[in-house]
Order: sequence, then C-alpha cells, then structure tokens
Amino acid sequence: MKIIIVGASGTMGQFLTSILQKENHEIIRANRSSGDVKVDITSPASIKNMFLETGAFDALVSTAGPTFVGSWKNLTDQTFRSGIEGKMMGQINLVLIGQHYIRPKGSFTLITGALTHEPQRNFANASAANGAVEGFVRAASIELENSVRINAVSPTVIEDSPQYFPYFPGETPTTMKQLEYAFRKSLFGAVTGQIIKP
Amino acid sequence: MKIIIVGASGTMGQFLTSILQKENHEIIRANRSSGDVKVDITSPASIKNMFLETGAFDALVSTAGPTFVGSWKNLTDQTFRSGIEGKMMGQINLVLIGQHYIRPKGSFTLITGALTHEPQRNFANASAANGAVEGFVRAASIELENSVRINAVSPTVIEDSPQYFPYFPGETPTTMKQLEYAFRKSLFGAVTGQIIKP
Repeated sequence: MKIIIVGASGTMGQFLTSILQKENHEIIRANRSSGDVKVDITSPASIKNMFLETGAFDALVSTAGPTFVGSWKNLTDQTFRSGIEGKMMGQINLVLIGQHYIRPKGSFTLITGALTHEPQRNFANASAANGAVEGFVRAASIELENSVRINAVSPTVIEDSPQYFPYFPGETPTTMKQLEYAFRKSLFGAVTGQIIKP
Repeated sequence: MKIIIVGASGTMGQFLTSILQKENHEIIRANRSSGDVKVDITSPASIKNMFLETGAFDALVSTAGPTFVGSWKNLTDQTFRSGIEGKMMGQINLVLIGQHYIRPKGSFTLITGALTHEPQRNFANASAANGAVEGFVRAASIELENSVRINAVSPTVIEDSPQYFPYFPGETPTTMKQLEYAFRKSLFGAVTGQIIKP
C-alpha cells in the first residue's frame, strides 16, 4: 500500500513510519522541511504540489497540526488563526485536494485529540480545531466518492511526549501501542466517518 | 436582565426576542443592518464597537452563523472560509471580545446544530464550524472568569424553517417551544460548557 504520512518527522509520524515500513508498504514521508516530499499544509498550493509529486496513493495519514497553546488571556482572533490554518484547514485541505489524487477504496486518517471533549487550560484553540476536523470527518464520509474512507484518530496526551503530561492532569496517557492500533483500524479496517479513540 | 441577541432579525432571533421581551428583560437586538445596534460578526472591530455601544450586559445570545451550503464538489479552501469567518470565528470572537464587557455571573449562548454529529449532504462546512464552536464552548467554560458561563444550543432543522426540511431527511424538526426551553436552560440555568440539544 502506498501511504503518505504527513508530519512524518514528529513523534507520532516517526513511530508510524518505522512500524509500517517493516510491513513492506511504500511510505512517503512528508514534512515541512525534510522527508521524501516537502509540504506546508497551511498552503493549498503546497499541498497540491505534494500530490503532483507523489502521484496516486492508497492512504494518507496526517499527524500534523499546529495550534496556539498559551494563556487564555492571549487568545485573540489573531492567535486563534494558527489552529485554523494549521490543524484545521491544513488537514481539511489535505482531503479536499487529496481526493482528486487518491485511489478508489483509499483512506484518509486525520489527527484530532481528546481536547475536543476534555478541555484543559491553555488549549482552547486545539479544542476548536479538533472539533472542526471531527465534524468535517463525519460530513466528508458521506460525500467522498469511489469508496474512499475517512476517519480521525483522537488520542489524549501520548506516552512518548512526557513534556506535555503536566498540562493534562488526570489524563491517562495514550500508549504508543494503543496509538498504533487506532491508526491500523482506520488504515486497514473498513470504517469511515469515525473518531477513533485509542 | 440585559440581553444582547445577535442575529435578532433571523427566524430564531425574532422568536426569542418576542418571548423574552414579554418578561421585562432589556433586549438589545443586534443585526448586520438593522436592530438596536449593528454588528458584522466577521469583523472583530465591529464586534468591539457593538460592546462599546451596549456597555455592560448580563447575557449574549447568538443565533447568527453564515456557512457555505452547497455541493461537495464546490467545497474548497476558499468556500470553506465563509463558515470559518461567520459561524465559527464570528461567534468565538463574540466571546473573546465580549468577556471584557459582560457582567460577573453573565452568560454566553452560542448556536451550533445537529450537523456536528449528524451530517447531511451539502453541509460539511456547517458540520466543521459547529464542531469548532462546540469544542471552543467546552474549553472556554473552564477559562472564563467571574463565574461567567457559556453554552451552545444545538437544534436540528427548526420547525419555522420548513424550506430546509428537504435537506434534512429523517430529522424530526426541533419545535420552537423546544428551542425556547434550550435557550432558557443556558440563559437562566446554572450549567456551563454544555451543548444543549433541544
């Protein structure tokens, strides 16, 4: 299976790449400034260029999504835009544009997070971006043609990012194994329109 | 109670205004081009001007939220922006800016809709905007100070808008009475961070 991993240099992306490469998939690593193809997901033109470069593919996994993290008093129309352009429209545009390049029966897997329903201080921008992506995933699942599927994986703070633990009091971290299973469900299962909680 | 109704000239806004005015609340009707104060919710400057004009208030109810409605094949980065600037950032900015003018123990009530979880064709933009607002509402509820509350009301297609019924097959329309009760729960109850389904 030819799989594009957007955000392949991040913690989750590296982990997924290493696992899926062992299984003889063709993995295309996409990052802003490294990898097999370069992509700035905040730019629709850059996304289109990526697909022109990769050509037809079977699956796209996104683990990318910048948002504004910081004090509520610094959250304004302007700071809110980082999550809109990054985690929200970045991922939505991967689908709106990528649907013209994906093979029949292909799949999109986007990343959201527990913050949609379990807010924490400093992360209101991520809660909104996640919620937008989740609403979009459900809607896209009834619109995409040629049996193309779409899901989101929604972990809480992940095991391999302990630097974030203090910001998520009371959250049991998602293990990397749980995360792997969630992505497998979307990549290799039959579900669509689902928000998969590892 | 001094209540600002944003979108007061719409179907829901007119209905709520007529009911709440009978109860001796001070109702301030806000619309783009009519009402007691004018506001373009896609402009943070216009929102700020509205609050400077109204002064301190006890509650803000928003029933406003333009989104892109149309064929999936016409949904692009560009058409997606109508829901982002309208229903999403328009309502989020009402809170981010309005929090500096609302009285202690005041409340914000935003509008979302069943499309967040029950998608229909042509409405992917609304599903995303709703999801963003709902994620934001939950996050804002733990950040707002001075016991200010925030909730969203999430109806499906409403009884008084039969022109939309054909786009919502299988949805039992929300009656105007149910809608009234949902807004009352947010306005006069004690809940916060809730998505209230009429």
